[in-house]
Amino acid sequence: MSGNTLGSLFSVTTFGESHGPAIGCVIDGCPPGLALLESDIQFELDRRRPGTSRHVTQRQEPDTVEILSGLYQGLTTGTPIALLIRNLDQRSKDYGNLQDTFRPGHADYTYQHKYGLRDPRGGGRSSARLTAPVVGAAAIAKKWLKQQYGTEIRGYMRQLGEIALPFEGWQHVNGNPFFAASGDPALLARLEQAMDALRKSGDSIGARIDVVAESVPVGLGNPIYDRLDAEIAHAMMGINAVKGVEIGDGFAVVSQRGSEHGDELTPHGFASNHAGGILGGISTGQAISVSLAIKPTSSILTARHSINLAGEPVDVATRGRHDPCVGIRATPIAEAMLAIVLINAALHQRAQCGDVAGGTLPDIARAASGTPITPITQ
Amino acid sequence: MSGNTLGSLFSVTTFGESHGPAIGCVIDGCPPGLALLESDIQFELDRRRPGTSRHVTQRQEPDTVEILSGLYQGLTTGTPIALLIRNLDQRSKDYGNLQDTFRPGHADYTYQHKYGLRDPRGGGRSSARLTAPVVGAAAIAKKWLKQQYGTEIRGYMRQLGEIALPFEGWQHVNGNPFFAASGDPALLARLEQAMDALRKSGDSIGARIDVVAESVPVGLGNPIYDRLDAEIAHAMMGINAVKGVEIGDGFAVVSQRGSEHGDELTPHGFASNHAGGILGGISTGQAISVSLAIKPTSSILTARHSINLAGEPVDVATRGRHDPCVGIRATPIAEAMLAIVLINAALHQRAQCGDVAGGTLPDIARAASGTPITPITQ
Amino acid sequence: MSGNTLGSLFSVTTFGESHGPAIGCVIDGCPPGLALLESDIQFELDRRRPGTSRHVTQRQEPDTVEILSGLYQGLTTGTPIALLIRNLDQRSKDYGNLQDTFRPGHADYTYQHKYGLRDPRGGGRSSARLTAPVVGAAAIAKKWLKQQYGTEIRGYMRQLGEIALPFEGWQHVNGNPFFAASGDPALLARLEQAMDALRKSGDSIGARIDVVAESVPVGLGNPIYDRLDAEIAHAMMGINAVKGVEIGDGFAVVSQRGSEHGDELTPHGFASNHAGGILGGISTGQAISVSLAIKPTSSILTARHSINLAGEPVDVATRGRHDPCVGIRATPIAEAMLAIVLINAALHQRAQCGDVAGGTLPDIARAASGTPITPITQ
Amino acid sequence: MSGNTLGSLFSVTTFGESHGPAIGCVIDGCPPGLALLESDIQFELDRRRPGTSRHVTQRQEPDTVEILSGLYQGLTTGTPIALLIRNLDQRSKDYGNLQDTFRPGHADYTYQHKYGLRDPRGGGRSSARLTAPVVGAAAIAKKWLKQQYGTEIRGYMRQLGEIALPFEGWQHVNGNPFFAASGDPALLARLEQAMDALRKSGDSIGARIDVVAESVPVGLGNPIYDRLDAEIAHAMMGINAVKGVEIGDGFAVVSQRGSEHGDELTPHGFASNHAGGILGGISTGQAISVSLAIKPTSSILTARHSINLAGEPVDVATRGRHDPCVGIRATPIAEAMLAIVLINAALHQRAQCGDVAGGTLPDIARAASGTPITPITQ
Repeated sequence: MSGNTLGSLFSVTTFGESHGPAIGCVIDGCPPGLALLESDIQFELDRRRPGTSRHVTQRQEPDTVEILSGLYQGLTTGTPIALLIRNLDQRSKDYGNLQDTFRPGHADYTYQHKYGLRDPRGGGRSSARLTAPVVGAAAIAKKWLKQQYGTEIRGYMRQLGEIALPFEGWQHVNGNPFFAASGDPALLARLEQAMDALRKSGDSIGARIDVVAESVPVGLGNPIYDRLDAEIAHAMMGINAVKGVEIGDGFAVVSQRGSEHGDELTPHGFASNHAGGILGGISTGQAISVSLAIKPTSSILTARHSINLAGEPVDVATRGRHDPCVGIRATPIAEAMLAIVLINAALHQRAQCGDVAGGTLPDIARAASGTPITPITQ
Repeated sequence: MSGNTLGSLFSVTTFGESHGPAIGCVIDGCPPGLALLESDIQFELDRRRPGTSRHVTQRQEPDTVEILSGLYQGLTTGTPIALLIRNLDQRSKDYGNLQDTFRPGHADYTYQHKYGLRDPRGGGRSSARLTAPVVGAAAIAKKWLKQQYGTEIRGYMRQLGEIALPFEGWQHVNGNPFFAASGDPALLARLEQAMDALRKSGDSIGARIDVVAESVPVGLGNPIYDRLDAEIAHAMMGINAVKGVEIGDGFAVVSQRGSEHGDELTPHGFASNHAGGILGGISTGQAISVSLAIKPTSSILTARHSINLAGEPVDVATRGRHDPCVGIRATPIAEAMLAIVLINAALHQRAQCGDVAGGTLPDIARAASGTPITPITQ
Repeated sequence: MSGNTLGSLFSVTTFGESHGPAIGCVIDGCPPGLALLESDIQFELDRRRPGTSRHVTQRQEPDTVEILSGLYQGLTTGTPIALLIRNLDQRSKDYGNLQDTFRPGHADYTYQHKYGLRDPRGGGRSSARLTAPVVGAAAIAKKWLKQQYGTEIRGYMRQLGEIALPFEGWQHVNGNPFFAASGDPALLARLEQAMDALRKSGDSIGARIDVVAESVPVGLGNPIYDRLDAEIAHAMMGINAVKGVEIGDGFAVVSQRGSEHGDELTPHGFASNHAGGILGGISTGQAISVSLAIKPTSSILTARHSINLAGEPVDVATRGRHDPCVGIRATPIAEAMLAIVLINAALHQRAQCGDVAGGTLPDIARAASGTPITPITQ
Repeated sequence: MSGNTLGSLFSVTTFGESHGPAIGCVIDGCPPGLALLESDIQFELDRRRPGTSRHVTQRQEPDTVEILSGLYQGLTTGTPIALLIRNLDQRSKDYGNLQDTFRPGHADYTYQHKYGLRDPRGGGRSSARLTAPVVGAAAIAKKWLKQQYGTEIRGYMRQLGEIALPFEGWQHVNGNPFFAASGDPALLARLEQAMDALRKSGDSIGARIDVVAESVPVGLGNPIYDRLDAEIAHAMMGINAVKGVEIGDGFAVVSQRGSEHGDELTPHGFASNHAGGILGGISTGQAISVSLAIKPTSSILTARHSINLAGEPVDVATRGRHDPCVGIRATPIAEAMLAIVLINAALHQRAQCGDVAGGTLPDIARAASGTPITPITQ
């Protein structure tokens, strides 16, 4: 495949540019018989949508999805599902001055060299706007995983710039514009102030996002190369601006001892989850935990040194509408990527090991921490 | 593909288990006309080979490679190249007690649940021994990249447990058993002592490895999903025991400002390389830098709590021969994975953009930091 | 991939059903910098469009294409190109009676068993209407192949039922509703009469289509499995209703001698082309010739025995609008499939053998019959 | 993938050349828990082996297979299975004169142009010898299909040159050197005489092979592109020397009426099988029937006109050991290709539609002609 497809069995191929007529995707391989409404998809799109607070880009896009195929009488038919989202609020003239220059930290330079030309309007295909179709596709994956295995995929912001955000409970995440897992008014006020100050300074900031999948069946993934953790790393590093990915304890393992890191097993389940739910490339049935580093937005008002197409020095300050912290809207995107990796792994497991006793049957989502492990009788 | 293949154009499919008759791989898609000797491959295999110091597993394997196909009169023919390495020093009886139990932190548990059975001898396919074939395949990729673009791919150990290892120069890396980029006798003595103490304690330790590719052409990679950084993350997380991957500044970006992170351009090249050589999923021509977190070996002499196949509590202490720090031999493996990702990206770039002026021609490996950028004329 | 994608480097993923809101496709991997207008695509769609004569389905569809992405200032950008065609003339009530019954010779039965449900309106995804997006995508492939190598891909109807249609010249093909390569008024009148009689009888008929690609570079394809002829056979048998595929002399080879079949070479080129332009799975540079057998339409007015969903015997006669000979509109479809196979093979050849002297450079489309072969100096 | 892999879920990647050290393959994705002996594989290899009668090549190769991986205690483990077959009877000097010339009808010319060099010894990778590994891999696929669904895949020679061979029963096929489904001594004597005369004349001849799969579950395949018939056509045209493929009635459909071709359904099953077991790209549960045209061997003793590497005219007569009719040994190869297509389709069906009632459960191989169709209740 030529790069714009995610997943080999539940395959999502996206298309579109920030300022073209539309964006969307085709989902091939969806299991048939799944009840699906446009509102199932719209719900997730609305979580990612721009313009919902003053801390994100002010571009006004309803991101209304149209399902073009693959449904009959409210059920998936097993044929490709196409999703279409029209672009409505382009202001391409804002980008006129970028035609000839390269923003520091931006894909302008690499697109120009790779393709010999580029669509500079709103960043073209490198725009974070292109994460919308995959969020739409993942709404279907999430619904199927939930029905089959009770799988729950949720994320939250763990750090914004230098401000660490404690995890206090999933119920808080959709109650604030930052996807913080905290209901602490003081903390939220601090975030608001930090973002307001940042915006005024014409600069941008990074963030760290955590995503967790619970009730994942044991046995998903492969021993080598297309390991479950490798597929997750691929998906997460496939999100714009991500520069680091961790599974479980992540970089903390560098200074751990084996006697500290290896999760002991008891008749009542794993005693800990340093592994982040994956051992040897295959899911353990425990919660899968992933953490991402997201770099600061490269389009900023602060003038910076660069060159133009002729190689001459220029200063670039980006007008237009941009997220001062792309990490703020990254939580639903990271959830989406994890959902698509998991449905692919689940379908692959059905293919190869569908008749292994205790294979991918719904009732084997049992090895989650604290849940008794059924004795294995061969 | 079913998981055991790396790369879609230069495709490496590996096979084998730790204690089976042989391990090896088939490389499909190698460009024809490349001069290749078995010694080119043996050189890299010897760097990764066990038994070369007291700090790694004492299994004695010469890892002698046989090229079974794809060569004629010393040149690659463009047809598949098969590499065969016989296993010679199995001691399967050491693993008899593992048949029925799950080592904490090990793939025993997940293999058993995924497949309904497993080969417990030496860890079967989950053994680090299975990294040998990909190191062999990558020797070919490295040679081709070097000839085409002058690309140089090198790695070193950056941290062993809590001991940070400064980068003092590539010339030191092959001069000590740790792949340390340092010639400081005091530091090397400290590493020896730390490893000796660790071995006596019957425990294991983690490590951090850095890999750098220089003289990479600009333009390799894709905007979305199969981005160059995503492919690198996939490959690196596909190595046994890796729990974290960073590109460029990695997790440090979380607290960076855009005005600090975005690498400025000058007529003489990029002024810095926070990006680690990749912007928007596509190579910039600067050095690509990757960092990996490797967990401590799960097979340790220290007894730990676990369960057996019947779900009953047992204590497990692993005898047999194991690396107390799998990170020590990880450097050539990480280099190998990066080489295979880069040759795939280079071949893909030739396919799609082979006639873009300034596409992947050898002379465009020019944007490396400090090298003048040729003006682009469209 | 999950079945609905054609090609691995120039990848066409289609979506849509006969009576859904729209049909279309996403093309991933198109080389950048190709000048492309909607009219380039519309031209080919119009050749395949229904309702253009009384001998084809009377469904009125303008099949107007909208390009949603992948273009900037009239040039392809290298990012995915999405094509959208709205369905405008659905009459779903015509298909009410098909909800519960299986047409003999139709996909009704297999879809129902595979997916557990199906969209019966107009045949859902099994409709010949779904060939439109690939014809649109192939317009791009044709244009690129023409520009790069001068490749010309043309087809014609060679037999309609029992009436053989001689090849008299390409100039005739677009001048009659049958894609006959003949300007003989008597023959065309005979075809009109045969079709009129067939329509009145409420029955349908098969056809044979030939497709030829000229000025194809030597060297496209692979030795085993993904041979150029195998890829062509896959593509052609992927068209609805095709039951047989031949390359070159096809089934006539069964009774040929080697001394008769093997095409001799002379300093002025090949002396014949029994091979149909492919030897050992790789193009020779001669014209590639393919022949297809297309079965009679399964939806006919003649009542036939079948069963319903409950397994009870029923009689089925299909109303609605159907082509009495699906072969009539198959010529542009077969051309499209061949074009997509060839662009994929050309891009793959650039990837693996891009620097072989005499590889895929435009000037090597030289081995066509009658053209002097340049001496090969190694 | 780069061409030498067949199948995306049960993936067979082959390697080797006619006169290299060894040939073989890696099978990735085999379901775990299948009992497998080397003798299961050797049985099929022996059917295809050269030197078994005077009518095939006299090269003496025992084709003894060694399983290098993927088995533990006689069961497949789900990890890659590597098969190795050493080449023992090379006589490379026979091919010295072919280094510089191109045999008419042979891949010599295209390999040379594609890769810029070639291994001329015994045809290198274009040798029919390279069908051995896929026959070995298919032995595993056949065994699994038989156990899961009772699937039986068998082929026979239907025509040798101008001699048609009637189908009289499967029991005859392994009882004569031609894979004829006839026990008629007069016919077999006629074949012997024809082959003896052909050999003396220094020429070669074509053949037609039929392959049939019975007890195939309904529902295998996809609507578009990766249709079951398209995958079969791809596999069959991927065999050396195949120039035509038919499914069911094949080219006879050209002159059929819809009322004649479409197979009627009754409560007791399909009334006929013109479709060859596939409708709309998906299996019906009836027998799948495929027919192949195999061209005459291109390596013949009869001198023919050609050119050398310098483009000068030369005459070529091929010494060495060659099958005068490659079709004679093609039957087990065609069976092998069909088996690999079917196991892939079966695994894909489990992945996407594993929970469709009546999906791919063993008991649904019920729609075979003459078997009562279970009423479908949704």
